[in-house]
Amino acid sequence: MAIILGDNQYGKAESRIVRIYRDQPRHEIRDLNVSTALRGPFEPAYLVGDQSNVLPTDTQKNTAYAFAKSKGIGAIEDYGLELARHFVNEVDPVVGARIEIEEFAWERAIVDGAEHDHTWMRKGQEVRTAAVTVDATGEYVIAGLKDLTILKSTGSEFTGFLVDEFTTLPETRDRVMATALDVKWRYAGTDVAWDEVYADVKMLMVKQFATLQSLALQQTLWHMGKAVLEAYPAIVEMRLRAPNKHHFDYDIARFDLENNHEVFWAADRAYGLIEATVLRDDSPPANDAWRSAAGLA
Amino acid sequence: MAIILGDNQYGKAESRIVRIYRDQPRHEIRDLNVSTALRGPFEPAYLVGDQSNVLPTDTQKNTAYAFAKSKGIGAIEDYGLELARHFVNEVDPVVGARIEIEEFAWERAIVDGAEHDHTWMRKGQEVRTAAVTVDATGEYVIAGLKDLTILKSTGSEFTGFLVDEFTTLPETRDRVMATALDVKWRYAGTDVAWDEVYADVKMLMVKQFATLQSLALQQTLWHMGKAVLEAYPAIVEMRLRAPNKHHFDYDIARFDLENNHEVFWAADRAYGLIEATVLRDDSPPANDAWRSAAGLA
Amino acid sequence: MAIILGDNQYGKAESRIVRIYRDQPRHEIRDLNVSTALRGPFEPAYLVGDQSNVLPTDTQKNTAYAFAKSKGIGAIEDYGLELARHFVNEVDPVVGARIEIEEFAWERAIVDGAEHDHTWMRKGQEVRTAAVTVDATGEYVIAGLKDLTILKSTGSEFTGFLVDEFTTLPETRDRVMATALDVKWRYAGTDVAWDEVYADVKMLMVKQFATLQSLALQQTLWHMGKAVLEAYPAIVEMRLRAPNKHHFDYDIARFDLENNHEVFWAADRAYGLIEATVLRDDSPPANDAWRSAAGLA
Amino acid sequence: MAIILGDNQYGKAESRIVRIYRDQPRHEIRDLNVSTALRGPFEPAYLVGDQSNVLPTDTQKNTAYAFAKSKGIGAIEDYGLELARHFVNEVDPVVGARIEIEEFAWERAIVDGAEHDHTWMRKGQEVRTAAVTVDATGEYVIAGLKDLTILKSTGSEFTGFLVDEFTTLPETRDRVMATALDVKWRYAGTDVAWDEVYADVKMLMVKQFATLQSLALQQTLWHMGKAVLEAYPAIVEMRLRAPNKHHFDYDIARFDLENNHEVFWAADRAYGLIEATVLRDDSPPANDAWRSAAGLA
Repeated sequence: MAIILGDNQYGKAESRIVRIYRDQPRHEIRDLNVSTALRGPFEPAYLVGDQSNVLPTDTQKNTAYAFAKSKGIGAIEDYGLELARHFVNEVDPVVGARIEIEEFAWERAIVDGAEHDHTWMRKGQEVRTAAVTVDATGEYVIAGLKDLTILKSTGSEFTGFLVDEFTTLPETRDRVMATALDVKWRYAGTDVAWDEVYADVKMLMVKQFATLQSLALQQTLWHMGKAVLEAYPAIVEMRLRAPNKHHFDYDIARFDLENNHEVFWAADRAYGLIEATVLRDDSPPANDAWRSAAGLA
Repeated sequence: MAIILGDNQYGKAESRIVRIYRDQPRHEIRDLNVSTALRGPFEPAYLVGDQSNVLPTDTQKNTAYAFAKSKGIGAIEDYGLELARHFVNEVDPVVGARIEIEEFAWERAIVDGAEHDHTWMRKGQEVRTAAVTVDATGEYVIAGLKDLTILKSTGSEFTGFLVDEFTTLPETRDRVMATALDVKWRYAGTDVAWDEVYADVKMLMVKQFATLQSLALQQTLWHMGKAVLEAYPAIVEMRLRAPNKHHFDYDIARFDLENNHEVFWAADRAYGLIEATVLRDDSPPANDAWRSAAGLA
Repeated sequence: MAIILGDNQYGKAESRIVRIYRDQPRHEIRDLNVSTALRGPFEPAYLVGDQSNVLPTDTQKNTAYAFAKSKGIGAIEDYGLELARHFVNEVDPVVGARIEIEEFAWERAIVDGAEHDHTWMRKGQEVRTAAVTVDATGEYVIAGLKDLTILKSTGSEFTGFLVDEFTTLPETRDRVMATALDVKWRYAGTDVAWDEVYADVKMLMVKQFATLQSLALQQTLWHMGKAVLEAYPAIVEMRLRAPNKHHFDYDIARFDLENNHEVFWAADRAYGLIEATVLRDDSPPANDAWRSAAGLA
Repeated sequence: MAIILGDNQYGKAESRIVRIYRDQPRHEIRDLNVSTALRGPFEPAYLVGDQSNVLPTDTQKNTAYAFAKSKGIGAIEDYGLELARHFVNEVDPVVGARIEIEEFAWERAIVDGAEHDHTWMRKGQEVRTAAVTVDATGEYVIAGLKDLTILKSTGSEFTGFLVDEFTTLPETRDRVMATALDVKWRYAGTDVAWDEVYADVKMLMVKQFATLQSLALQQTLWHMGKAVLEAYPAIVEMRLRAPNKHHFDYDIARFDLENNHEVFWAADRAYGLIEATVLRDDSPPANDAWRSAAGLA
C-alpha cells in the first residue's frame, strides 16, 4: 500500500479580459472571464516541490491576454481552442489543457435614436459559457449558458404526484413557473458556427418554456433538450440544471381580497432543483475528456 | 445628564412582491423588493418593552402584499405613496412612514418572432428605485436607478492633475471609462408622469456619458445632472455616485505585441469613487424628510 | 435660477491592504479594506474638466499603502487619523478628508497545542469599522462593527402589539431572537484607547443581548446602547441597526411531532429591521462632519 | 437513432434548518443547509408529465425538518444517512438518494467570563460539509470543509519553474501564501467517529500548511493529503482544491520606503487554482455513487 497522487490540474482562474476592436469608427467589445488549467507530468511539483515542468499560472494569464490581441476574440469557443492548442502543442510537458470562459454581453447605447459607436450598457441577462478541452485523444467543446432567468405567469400545473406521510403540498392547475437556467451542451466536433448555433439554442429553449403547457419542470426541460437535439445533429448531449424558483400565492383572502394568482411572494430558499441529461441513444459516451470539459472532474 | 433615545424607525425590509395582471390574454408583470419603515411615539417599546403602539413588521408586510392587489402596482412612486399615506393616516400612532422600493425589469420572450403573452426574461440591467416619505410636513419622492453599468471605449482622458510625492499615475488622452451608475433625484412634488420621466432621465444621462469628450468622470457626472435639471423643472436635485471601474491596458509589449488600447484587464478593487450633488441655486433645501427619503438618516 | 454643484467628494474605495510585522520571529498581521475621500475646491474638475486641484485617486491609494509602512498600522482609528491629517495638511487644495476602514480579524493557527508564529486563519466573525473625518472644524472618529451574527434560543418574547385589519401575527412568549448587528459609535475626542474600548463595547453589547429578557428587539438595542454610554463617557452616541433574522417554528405537528421551539426555518427575506440612536441629552449634536464621518452624507 | 433521457435527479435544495436542544438549561444549537435529491424511475415525469412516481420536493423538505426532531441532529453524516436511507427504503419508487449538507458553526457568547447557556455568535470560519449517497450498491459518505481561509507570512517560495516566451514572473524565496481550502474526503465505510475525525483532519491540514517550508502550493496540498491518509485508514481519498490568493508586494520603493515583504495588496482576481487528488494505490475506485456523492455527476 502506498499513498499516491491521483488526478490533478492547475491553472489561473478568472482572468477578466476586455477586448476592444477599434479599427473602424464603430468599435466592438468582447468581455470575458477566462480560466485555464493544465495537465501533465506535474508529480514532482507535488512530491518534492520541483517546478521544472510547471508553467506558472501567471504565464498562463499572460498568454490569455496576449492571444486576445494576436489571435483576436471571435466566438469564445474558437478563442478557447486556440489557447488550449497552444498549451498542448507549444509547451513541452503539457499533455492536456482545459479552458473555461464566461462571456458577458453588452448592448449599444441608443443616442438620439441611433446606436452609438463606442458606448455600451451591460446587458445583464444570461452569461454565455464555453469549456474546451484539448488532449492527445482529441478536441472537445461544451457550450452553455447560465443565469437565464425566465418566468411564465400561467401554463404550468403540478398534480398527480406521489403522496406519503410527509406530503402536505396541494395540487395546482395554474401556477407561476420560474427558473434560472444553467445548461451545457456538447458538440460532436469543432466545425460549428458557434455564434449562430448559440443564439438558436437559446431561442429554441425559450420557445419550449413559453409554449408547452407544463405538467412539471421536468417535462419542460425534456422538451427543451429534445428540441435542440432535433435541430442540431452536431449537438450530442444537453445537461440542464434548473432551480424551481418558487412564487407562492400570498394569502390575502385573510383581508377579504381575492388572489386569483395575481400576488406572489418570490422566495429565496429552499428551492426545487431539477437536473437532467438529454442525449441520443447513439451519442458517443461522455468520456473523461468530455467530463473534464464539463467541469465534472 | 441622561441617556435618551434619539432618531429611530422600524419596519419590514425586502418583501419580494411579484404582481401579475392577467385580466387580458396578454399578461403584465411587476417585480418589486419593498421595504417599509415607520416613525412615531415608539419610545415605550425601547425603554420598557411596551409594544402597544407598535404595528408588527409582519403586519407591514401583509399590507404591502394586500395593496399589490387592492391598489395595484403602477409606477412604484404611486404605490409607495399609497402605502406611506395608509400608515400615516390609518394607523393611529404612526406619524411618519418611509417606503423604499426596488423594481426589477423583465422583457417579453420572443417566440416565432412575436412577443409572448405570458413569458418574460429578467432584463438584468439597471434596478429602478424609489424612496417615498410621508409625514406631517408633506410628501417627498426620490426616484433613482442603480447598477446601470455603462462603458465607453474612447472619448475619455485624464491629464493635468495635481502631483505630489506619492503620484505615479501617467497622464492619458485615451482610456476606457466605465461605471455602474447609482443616481437619486428628488422631485418638487408628486404630480409627475413617473414612468415617462424615469425613461427620459435615463436616456439623458446615457447620452451625456456617450457624447461628452470626458476630461474626468467628475465632468461627465456634472453634465448628466445638468442635462436632467434643464429638462425637468420638477426635479430639484440629483445625487450621483459613480465608481470608476478601472480598465487597465494590459502590458503585451513584453511579447512584441502592440496594445493600442485594445486589450484591458478589468479590475475588481480598488476603484475610484466620485460622489456629487447637482441642484439649482433656488432648490428647496434637503430637509430632514428629504434626507430620510434619500436614506441619508 | 442657475444650476450649481452641491456637496461632492471623490477618492479611492476598497484598497485591500495587508500589513505583516516580521521584525520578531512571532509575526503580526493587520488586514484592512481602506477607502479615502477628499473634499475641497474641486468645482473646476466638474464644470470644465480642469484637474489641477485633483490629487488622483491612484495617488490616494499609493499613500495608504506607503503609510502602512511609514506610519505602521496599529489601531485603525489612529491609522485613519494619520491618513486624513496628511491629506488635509500636506496636500494644498484639500480642505477635508474622510477615511473609511474595515478590519478583518485573523487568529493564530494552533500547531501541536501552541500558537504558530506566522500562520493564521481568518476569524470570519464581525468586521470592525472606523470612519474618520478631518477638516478645519476638527477631527471626528466613529468606530463600529458590522455582521456580528448573534442568536439566543430563549429569553425573547413579543406580545401586546398594536393590531389592525392586516395583523395576523400571533403573540409569542418564547422565540429565537437573532440578528447581525451593525453598530456605529462616535467619540467626543481622539484620546482613546481604541482597541481596548472596542473589545469592551462588543462585550457589553453581547452581554445585554444574552441576559436581558427581551420584550422586543427595540428594547434589547436600547439596553445595548445604554450600557455602552454608561461605561464610556468618551462615547457620545450609538447608532444601532439590527435586522430581525426570523427563525420560524417549522410546523411538524402535521406529522405528529411536537415542536417545542426546537426546529426552525431560518428565513432569508423579508426581515424586520430596527434602527435606533442612543445618546445623552447633552451630547454635542451630530454636525455635518459627524454625519459625513458616519457615512450619512 | 432516438433521443433519450440520461442521468437525472431532482430534489429540494438549501433548506435552512436550525435545531435547538433545550432539554437542559444549557441549550445546544445545530445550524444546517440541507439539500436532498432523489433518483429512480422518473422518466414519465419528463416524457409525458406523469408525476405518479414523483415525491414532491416540498415533501422532501418536510421530511428533513421532521427528522431534525424525530431523529435529532448529531453528526451531519449520521443525519444525512438517516435521510437517505428513509427515501430509498420507505418511498417505493426511489432507488437512490443523495443528501448534501453544510453546517455553520456557532460559539457560545462569553458573559462575565463564563459561556452563556443559550446565546451564541456565528463562528464564521470554515463551513463543514457532508455528501451522502445511498443506493442499491451501498452507502457512501464524503465529508469535507470549505472556505477555510488560511495564510502564512513566510515559509513559502516559488522558484525553478518552466519559462516560455510569455513568462515574466520573477522567482521568489519568501512570499505570503494564502488560500481558502475546499477539501472533500471519502470514507471506506460508515463506522466512523465523524466529529472527532473531522476535527483532527482539519488540525492535520493546518499543521502541514503551517510547518512545511513550501516550494509550491502543490507540495503543500500533497503533504496535507498524505498526512490525513496516513493517520486515518478509514479515509481512502482526499480531493483538495485551493485558490492561490495572491498577496503582491506593493511597490513603495518609489516613495523611498523599503518593503521587506511587509506591505501587500490582496488581489481579488485572477487567482491561481490548484486541484489535486491524493489516494492509496489500493483505494477502491471512485465509482458512480462515489462520484455522485462528491457532486461530480
